[in-house]
Amino acid sequence: MSSIQDVAQLAQVSTATASRALSRPDMVAAQTRQRVLDAARQLGYQPNMLARSLRQRETRTIGLIVTDILNPFHATLAKGVQDCAERHGYVTFLFNSDEQPSKERRALETLRGHLPQGLIVVPTSGTRAHLDALPHLPVVELDRVSGHPQSSSVTVDNIGGAYVATRHLIELGHRQIGMIVGEQSISTAVERREGFVRALTEAGLESRPDWLLPGHHREDDGHRAARQMLTPANRPTALFIGNNEMTVGAVLVARELGLRIPDDLTIVGFDDSRWAQTMFPPLTVVAQPAYELGTRACEQLLLQFGTDKRDPVHVQLPTELIIRHSTGPPSARRKSSAAPRQSSLSL
Amino acid sequence: MSSIQDVAQLAQVSTATASRALSRPDMVAAQTRQRVLDAARQLGYQPNMLARSLRQRETRTIGLIVTDILNPFHATLAKGVQDCAERHGYVTFLFNSDEQPSKERRALETLRGHLPQGLIVVPTSGTRAHLDALPHLPVVELDRVSGHPQSSSVTVDNIGGAYVATRHLIELGHRQIGMIVGEQSISTAVERREGFVRALTEAGLESRPDWLLPGHHREDDGHRAARQMLTPANRPTALFIGNNEMTVGAVLVARELGLRIPDDLTIVGFDDSRWAQTMFPPLTVVAQPAYELGTRACEQLLLQFGTDKRDPVHVQLPTELIIRHSTGPPSARRKSSAAPRQSSLSL
Repeated sequence: MSSIQDVAQLAQVSTATASRALSRPDMVAAQTRQRVLDAARQLGYQPNMLARSLRQRETRTIGLIVTDILNPFHATLAKGVQDCAERHGYVTFLFNSDEQPSKERRALETLRGHLPQGLIVVPTSGTRAHLDALPHLPVVELDRVSGHPQSSSVTVDNIGGAYVATRHLIELGHRQIGMIVGEQSISTAVERREGFVRALTEAGLESRPDWLLPGHHREDDGHRAARQMLTPANRPTALFIGNNEMTVGAVLVARELGLRIPDDLTIVGFDDSRWAQTMFPPLTVVAQPAYELGTRACEQLLLQFGTDKRDPVHVQLPTELIIRHSTGPPSARRKSSAAPRQSSLSL
Repeated sequence: MSSIQDVAQLAQVSTATASRALSRPDMVAAQTRQRVLDAARQLGYQPNMLARSLRQRETRTIGLIVTDILNPFHATLAKGVQDCAERHGYVTFLFNSDEQPSKERRALETLRGHLPQGLIVVPTSGTRAHLDALPHLPVVELDRVSGHPQSSSVTVDNIGGAYVATRHLIELGHRQIGMIVGEQSISTAVERREGFVRALTEAGLESRPDWLLPGHHREDDGHRAARQMLTPANRPTALFIGNNEMTVGAVLVARELGLRIPDDLTIVGFDDSRWAQTMFPPLTVVAQPAYELGTRACEQLLLQFGTDKRDPVHVQLPTELIIRHSTGPPSARRKSSAAPRQSSLSL
């Protein structure tokens, strides 16, 4: 890469003059300036942005930490953030915490050394404590909230989404309804559980502890919890599952146990995805506007730049229940119905 | 964030002494050094890595450009690169070119200003020209090659993978075989086409131009090409499709046209994914070691750091044909077989 020294040499001026011609052109004679500009163009000279950033205290970078880049929901969040950041001339440092507070802490330490102007983070259970160590960094929490009082947030209406999904199951006639919930140190998991329990309580149904099993948001967790709930003879006729990865695990258990969906087991998942649409049968889900979550988080962060400390802003987007073919009435009722529901599928 | 000045003040030493105590401890009295270290710890002082990087010409960052972060194959490549980079103490700047040379060029311009020590890129059709402008940057091309002579590369055996997939279709008895190929300015697309045509030619079959349709690697392209090939009465009985996203499009067309897979249409895709495993029927694919591609590219790049210019290295990993339930004999033969093939599925 060409340096300012190369430009100065080609333009036959001093390095100081070359530098001034590029950064403060009003201080240099027009003819000299033109010579420097021509030399810079000819050499493909790029000013050293890091050095400039240090002088101007503006690195034009933001940090982004998601908890699972292999989860399409998180990949879509990241795409939303990056597209928005790029439109505004910012570069995104993308990290993946793998749901591990220790990995999140290391990512924050690295970021800190690279002077990002702000941070967007999908929190782990360690985020609140980690952010206490970064009091001056503008932060937007994405998808989840850590409880850190200075952070803004962009989330969805998890309670409402879980409530509507559970109502759907109750209205289909289910009375034995289980849920696989996420880690209870994570806000989305707490809220989805709350919406679920609220809908059951309103309908006069109990939420049995053995039918409300926890998982750490991964496929394996959903698999383990579903095995535990579905193996006994007295099992739920319907499951609401707290995220997309755990839903995959539960669907695989249903197949392993020979339970037909929805005839033997009705399933509704949280978060839409391509596999949810193409799997057999297509999955009923609570869909979240993942891409928009990402862009809105980016916009909220950029709004904080260049301003004095302002109060945190909390944006909440709606969810949508998409009814496909994994939900139906429980089999006792099904027997009286005319045609099997899958017949409407052309596969 | 605390500065070195804050540390010096708390430790009651000069800024120069504080700085020396942290960077060249042997030059400072033990007692003074301890006072500075205590102050640094107390204030949570982090050395400014950007400034240090500029002095040492070592930013510990690498650039990564993938062409479609929403494609799970690319998300997995990125995860492989980032996990490996993190293990070695490097930070990854991740960009997404959306298959657009212009977006790739902007990403490279941004990266250039941030002084990455090296670049890993999934090339677009513009990469070769773009890299000519960055002669001193160590580069590893990932998944595809641009033809740029100084780049190392980590790819899979695309010709072999496509050949084996096509042989599988021929051995099942198919004679009317179509392919949806990628953009012919992209090496993987050219190679997969080559493997396909080679297998057909060896078997004495022709590759009809109207059954060898191009797409730009996205779902929409697969949809359009499949519509064009499958709508006429005289249509292929089997399709080989050049990437995962285009395969989704083709599967959806088969459903729209009421073609049962594999009875009416056999499909084999390139690249495995969760939806390929959970869709109905589970998809036969040429699987690529996506995560390993990412880690190997990272390792190849790191090997280039700190050494003088070395010859480019080209690593090629094998693919694997995974036979599931989307491939079967053509329907003329099928009639004589005992049981429908899907019966082996427990759904």
